[in-house]
Amino acid sequence: MRERYDHVLGCEQESARLALRYGADERLAREAALLHDVTKPLNFDEQLKLCQKYGIILDTVEKNERKLLHALTGACVAGKVYDACAEVCRAIRSHTTGDADMALLDKILYLADYIEPTRNFPGLSELREEAERDLDGAVIMGLTMSVRELAESGRLVHPRTIDARNSLILRKET
Amino acid sequence: MRERYDHVLGCEQESARLALRYGADERLAREAALLHDVTKPLNFDEQLKLCQKYGIILDTVEKNERKLLHALTGACVAGKVYDACAEVCRAIRSHTTGDADMALLDKILYLADYIEPTRNFPGLSELREEAERDLDGAVIMGLTMSVRELAESGRLVHPRTIDARNSLILRKET
Repeated sequence: MRERYDHVLGCEQESARLALRYGADERLAREAALLHDVTKPLNFDEQLKLCQKYGIILDTVEKNERKLLHALTGACVAGKVYDACAEVCRAIRSHTTGDADMALLDKILYLADYIEPTRNFPGLSELREEAERDLDGAVIMGLTMSVRELAESGRLVHPRTIDARNSLILRKET
Repeated sequence: MRERYDHVLGCEQESARLALRYGADERLAREAALLHDVTKPLNFDEQLKLCQKYGIILDTVEKNERKLLHALTGACVAGKVYDACAEVCRAIRSHTTGDADMALLDKILYLADYIEPTRNFPGLSELREEAERDLDGAVIMGLTMSVRELAESGRLVHPRTIDARNSLILRKET
């Protein structure tokens, strides 16, 4: 419980910092971060009830990688219960997998969640350096780390993660 | 030139062996292997001309990862020029990326291409052992190696590779 609290506040702080660094709306960046894990404490049955309530249709990967559900349900709860705007809901929806054509706020929340001060994993300092230097480069790096980790641990990779990575790489090249 | 020749004959040998091991048609397995790289010597412009000739519509990843084209053009040339049947063409089409719902022959060619006797890379002996033990397990292992290698080298990952890996993992779990 304490860890989640620290993570969310760390994410808010990092999200605000990145918003200032890359010219996004700081208030929305804070709001997205504060709400991004709002449904994370719920168990699988509770997640499924929220999916039913909000008409969320799960694909095969989402049905089998339960960690993905809180991003989908969190986006709906943020919008319906906390009256968050479409930009914030969209950023929350894509914060775990990424998505094709990520908006600035999506990228900021995705990265803030990855590199906020309480995080600790191999490669984190390189990711933080890249986040300071190049937002898209850092999101690509984060997506690549996710893909490698999922592949190495035998888990499913959501197609949105691949679409996100491919589209950012292609946009950098052109 | 010599290397490609040895690779194709090695692939034929391995494909026939896997066909016997897993109850596929040996003749089709040999044919698919002999034809799988039929358009690989062509350059990018020649590949594009074949795409135009056979009405192959390339997606964004295929347009940017040129290595993927020979599987698509190879499948058409195998069918139109060498009169290969649909099963063989399908196996050739998916031999580089894999595909969702791979048929037995698709899996055999995919693996034969990966582990034929002239190959040499880290992890090959484990992959060969798994190919002897469990065809689906070995295809998942090969797809995972590809995803990791592409991710590590900053290259695009085709969504078909992810679909192939996800669908085989899910089928194993159920």
